[in-house]
Amino acid sequence: MNQQQLFEQIQKKRSFLCVGLDTDIRRIPKYLTDTSDPVFVFNKEIIDATHEYAVAYKPNIAFYESLGWKGWESLEKTIVYLKSKYPEIFVIADAKRGDIGNTSNLYARAFFDHLDFDAVTVAPYMGEDSVKPFMTYPGKWVIVLALTSNKGAFDFQFLKDAESGDLLFESVLRKSQGWGTIENMMYVVGATKAEKLREIRGIVPAHFLLVPGVGAQGGSLKEVAENGMNSKCGLLVNSSRGIIYASNDVDFAEKACDAAKNVQLEMEQLLIEAQLV
Amino acid sequence: MNQQQLFEQIQKKRSFLCVGLDTDIRRIPKYLTDTSDPVFVFNKEIIDATHEYAVAYKPNIAFYESLGWKGWESLEKTIVYLKSKYPEIFVIADAKRGDIGNTSNLYARAFFDHLDFDAVTVAPYMGEDSVKPFMTYPGKWVIVLALTSNKGAFDFQFLKDAESGDLLFESVLRKSQGWGTIENMMYVVGATKAEKLREIRGIVPAHFLLVPGVGAQGGSLKEVAENGMNSKCGLLVNSSRGIIYASNDVDFAEKACDAAKNVQLEMEQLLIEAQLV
Repeated sequence: MNQQQLFEQIQKKRSFLCVGLDTDIRRIPKYLTDTSDPVFVFNKEIIDATHEYAVAYKPNIAFYESLGWKGWESLEKTIVYLKSKYPEIFVIADAKRGDIGNTSNLYARAFFDHLDFDAVTVAPYMGEDSVKPFMTYPGKWVIVLALTSNKGAFDFQFLKDAESGDLLFESVLRKSQGWGTIENMMYVVGATKAEKLREIRGIVPAHFLLVPGVGAQGGSLKEVAENGMNSKCGLLVNSSRGIIYASNDVDFAEKACDAAKNVQLEMEQLLIEAQLV
Repeated sequence: MNQQQLFEQIQKKRSFLCVGLDTDIRRIPKYLTDTSDPVFVFNKEIIDATHEYAVAYKPNIAFYESLGWKGWESLEKTIVYLKSKYPEIFVIADAKRGDIGNTSNLYARAFFDHLDFDAVTVAPYMGEDSVKPFMTYPGKWVIVLALTSNKGAFDFQFLKDAESGDLLFESVLRKSQGWGTIENMMYVVGATKAEKLREIRGIVPAHFLLVPGVGAQGGSLKEVAENGMNSKCGLLVNSSRGIIYASNDVDFAEKACDAAKNVQLEMEQLLIEAQLV
């Protein structure tokens, strides 16, 4: 999928919502655990209930890995289901991978070749050769961690480079831009650091940003939009727990639908204000 | 396993070799691909042939993930085999994970609870709460990336902090020490940057270091030992391709045995020179 196609989906659905499929077997409704693949059944119900309001889904791979090979099987089934039933939806592997070039190649193979994800999140610590292998697949994207939504972001991401005066996350944004294009790179910028979004837009005006941290982590959607939107929206805002765990009972899909719709309505308003729809 | 037990294994085997199980289905002997689980069969043969000379094994998870759930099944079988047949061996998941605390918890569950790894490699970009969940398992270790062996290490790891004057990898070493102890933390330091090892020992004198990059990547074992050894050896030096792909034919296990033995003999000499055996 290219940038224009993603923007068209955003305009069509009047939404820039990404639903985080952080499916924890310990948190899904009890009655589902009698089925042969509760994680897949849960995901399928959530996807069917929310797809009208979401342009992207983002399984965090940790939740699947914690179940071993059975978790990977649930993940594979989820991606096959998504891609066959809703091919217009952008699907992100939130994997935060990154290794020497030779090995990052294999992670790219895992997520783009073996599975049919559209994008993978990658940590920048190991530099260019850990990120570039993900950009050799046409139409696929790498999403580089810049400024994350957690408390630990302050440990290293704000260190100031003596030479350029840039903070580490700014160095990451500046340097990594040269590795790809606005058609194959995005950045993770946490909603909990929304005040930084305006500065970040100064460095990467045209890239899409994947913004976690709205909802359970405390970030504000309005602030994110005001500081981070560009002429093609340029934002995918993720919500996980607020949607997928809106209810813990037989009505979980219905309540997830309501929660996703509420976020979509807020997003629609923000898109109208920005004259993008 | 605690630090003393690891040192005792090193003394007993007169080796600080870690064998990297970077098992690529496209590189293993062709005749194995007729078996129902070629990756596991290959690993089992390699382990049986080299275990006398190695104190640790390190599957790089990318190689298994690239095969989807079947790869995870091969990984699980490999770990079960290692832990039941050679319980004295230290087993490292080279996963380079790291996410917000809530999610790192799940990665810890994947590698320590679901699988029985002794250690996991973790990227430091997201800071303390991405690393600490791995330290809540008694006897288990987190291995934080400090200075990696690849070319991309120069992109960010050498940025100098304006306030402290530390390079980024030095900031990582200094700050992260406070998150754990020498009994649950190690660091990755690439052999290709052996000249930095002496400085690194100044910052982390007592921690074990996991050193990749000897062999195919060009690092020198002698230099690593001269600059990085401490009173409990303090080193696990990894070799992957040089051992597991020593031959591509029916004698692959035999040739892996020879290659591992050669490295062990060189290590024995270095341990004798350092008066550690």
